[in-house]
Amino acid sequence: MQTKLVKRLHDKKERTESGLFLVEGEKSVLELLSSDFEIIELYTTQELFTAHEKVITQSGAKYYIVDAPEIASLSTLENNQSALALVRQKAVPKISDILATPSPITLALDGIRDPGNLGTLIRIADWYGLGHVLVSSDTTELYNPKTIAASMGSFARVQCIYVDLPATLRNHFQNNPILIADMQGNPADSFNFPPTGTLVIGSESHGISQDIKKLATDAVTIRRHGKAESLNAAMAGAIILDRWINR
Amino acid sequence: MQTKLVKRLHDKKERTESGLFLVEGEKSVLELLSSDFEIIELYTTQELFTAHEKVITQSGAKYYIVDAPEIASLSTLENNQSALALVRQKAVPKISDILATPSPITLALDGIRDPGNLGTLIRIADWYGLGHVLVSSDTTELYNPKTIAASMGSFARVQCIYVDLPATLRNHFQNNPILIADMQGNPADSFNFPPTGTLVIGSESHGISQDIKKLATDAVTIRRHGKAESLNAAMAGAIILDRWINR
Repeated sequence: MQTKLVKRLHDKKERTESGLFLVEGEKSVLELLSSDFEIIELYTTQELFTAHEKVITQSGAKYYIVDAPEIASLSTLENNQSALALVRQKAVPKISDILATPSPITLALDGIRDPGNLGTLIRIADWYGLGHVLVSSDTTELYNPKTIAASMGSFARVQCIYVDLPATLRNHFQNNPILIADMQGNPADSFNFPPTGTLVIGSESHGISQDIKKLATDAVTIRRHGKAESLNAAMAGAIILDRWINR
Repeated sequence: MQTKLVKRLHDKKERTESGLFLVEGEKSVLELLSSDFEIIELYTTQELFTAHEKVITQSGAKYYIVDAPEIASLSTLENNQSALALVRQKAVPKISDILATPSPITLALDGIRDPGNLGTLIRIADWYGLGHVLVSSDTTELYNPKTIAASMGSFARVQCIYVDLPATLRNHFQNNPILIADMQGNPADSFNFPPTGTLVIGSESHGISQDIKKLATDAVTIRRHGKAESLNAAMAGAIILDRWINR
């Protein structure tokens, strides 16, 4: 059991250097087991193992049955007493692979700082059937345990592609409309969404960067009735994607 | 300076017994200063004090200028180095006060367990101009620092009213439609929302309780295109409220 390595992977530096990361909690580990991620080691309670013996043994992962307090001591999460996996990060997909099978609507994230928001946006992309999300190079880390936890297993289905976002949009996505979420935009509830295009969601505190504003063909917003200054980035993404995809 | 009391208030038991709570971080503290909450003590850095001297002195709050590491040591949040306030909880509003000034659309929460989700839903209610949220008695604590932080100041404008939710809906809200968010419901994007009524959002893991399902006049859902099993409670609330209020 590589428990020392597991604990080192609580830090980003170790995740980056080793190319490994952690998947924690029952829901996330079960999604992981049915994905093509390479599991180095899996730690599970007897209870979870008994309930999911077939999928665990068929995955071919090396597994250890340990008690709940040991799982808790290895975990970064407050309440994980069920399962934890040591997993190899995947090779970063190339933009050319994405362009080979274009999707009608693309979600792009510009400088999202909060791992919970990034994970939630990956979950939203998965809900709406988007196979990948483009993220700017200053976006928070996909393999942060909080990102993985918030994605509720969707990290295993949605590819998160770190790119030079202004250059990528300019070079590959300008044939279709580029919409930005912006407080000064058109109300999403009455906006005439195009059949294809890209939606860019900006950072929690700075919104959309100037380089990307220049590329935008339109801006959309969510009509406000009360006094909250803003909605969070994940909320805004969810509401606008729903208006676009479920139009 | 009541710093020992501040640290004790990290625990729910102390918050409940003392009737006090903490408000942490620049954004939340500034919203607090323009509310009618009673601030017992305010701790601020020199920098934040200088930037907001007028609103701080006019609030009448007893304030102490301390350094950033001291704020961090008092705070439950990871990154709070700016301000923290020791605040008196408000008397719980009576349902009769709410009924005296009915709002066309009411948001009700049935057993939300995650403080981040509760705080986000309060922020969403504020965005859509709802002055209060009805919450079932088993909903997580309003005064949990994570709830307050996620509400981004909206806790100061939106009243969160803990009630026996089935009885309250039955006795006071059954004259208008009661809609529940449920995976088996009608797609929200084509649903003919009534002019008035109540939207009930269920718990993250159990959805809507049976007692409340019996009272529902209709169920709505968000059309799914991909493989995520669910959206989180705050996402679902945001998307459906947007469909209802911005119809």
